[in-house]
Amino acid sequence: MQLFSSPASPFVRKVRIAVRELGMEAEVEEVRTPVSPAERNADYATVTPLRLVPSLRLDDGLLLQDSTVILLYLDERSGGGLLPAGAARWEALARHGLAQGMLEAAVAMRYETTLRPEDLRWDVWIADKWSKIADTLDWFEARPETTAGRFDMPQIALASLLFYLDFRFDHRQWRNGYPRLAAWAAEVSERPSMAATVPHL
Amino acid sequence: MQLFSSPASPFVRKVRIAVRELGMEAEVEEVRTPVSPAERNADYATVTPLRLVPSLRLDDGLLLQDSTVILLYLDERSGGGLLPAGAARWEALARHGLAQGMLEAAVAMRYETTLRPEDLRWDVWIADKWSKIADTLDWFEARPETTAGRFDMPQIALASLLFYLDFRFDHRQWRNGYPRLAAWAAEVSERPSMAATVPHL
Repeated sequence: MQLFSSPASPFVRKVRIAVRELGMEAEVEEVRTPVSPAERNADYATVTPLRLVPSLRLDDGLLLQDSTVILLYLDERSGGGLLPAGAARWEALARHGLAQGMLEAAVAMRYETTLRPEDLRWDVWIADKWSKIADTLDWFEARPETTAGRFDMPQIALASLLFYLDFRFDHRQWRNGYPRLAAWAAEVSERPSMAATVPHL
Repeated sequence: MQLFSSPASPFVRKVRIAVRELGMEAEVEEVRTPVSPAERNADYATVTPLRLVPSLRLDDGLLLQDSTVILLYLDERSGGGLLPAGAARWEALARHGLAQGMLEAAVAMRYETTLRPEDLRWDVWIADKWSKIADTLDWFEARPETTAGRFDMPQIALASLLFYLDFRFDHRQWRNGYPRLAAWAAEVSERPSMAATVPHL
């Protein structure tokens, strides 16, 4: 399989962590793929008209989009491990949805505060995105994750988000308001899957 | 179950169509929920810190976010019908992912061209989003949907997108470039699930 990938994207990072947690490194070739709203990647447009990363090309040519769907596929293909079975599966997907919503807000903030020309930025937009992240971090702080057991799909998304905040919004110093999440992040950062996927330019 | 809902959102529409296609209307109460980046909905913040629609509150209180996850849940709960089984399931989710990417681009364009103050709009952003939609419509135009068989998850997303383009970007007259999609849209618009969920303010 081929993973169209960018080392700065937290959505890509979810997939890269999952591949390592599932022991599938030998099956997935990572293809570095620059994408930007300001510059059309014509080569990648022949792979997917959406030109978003991550996408995963299966051995039969089928292209899966969206980190959430890709994680569901890898989980099924590997025989499971990222999600529990039965009703607990939906509980895990609910937690994952909250982390995913924070990731989307954080990437929107990044576009707004960096890519967009400075005189076209809108404070209201940035404040809304950050307030969604802060409110959702409150939710997670009140319901601490454990590091016992498997590093699962919601935890992978949450860890990707927390370290993306370090990477892109270090000045916000999120750890100051969320001591339990900070302690959890410190623990999970030692996992090989996390150490091997630290975001960079 | 409670569906937190807005009659203009194409993501909400996906869920409303699916509920009707699966015959689950009696099980889902729709709760009209105004959300805007420019105004925090404090009541809804007690339901979800992300304050996004759609979300689905299950009878046990669990809140599912994201139309894609909600459709997967409704499909499982109702015994199936939105997606085929086996490998064809991933093929359907791949098509769905393309339609979903267009929906995200279209909603981003809507924010940019309406909600954002006029002097802060960025042409590059709008052009990128529209080019993603146009390229992906090309993809679908070359691989026509049929109206034989079930109205499935990728078709629900695609139909939501096409009629959202009518609703918000009528001046772009998308039908001019995509005659097969236009013919397909005309056929599916007659389904009761589509007629009952026409977007409005």
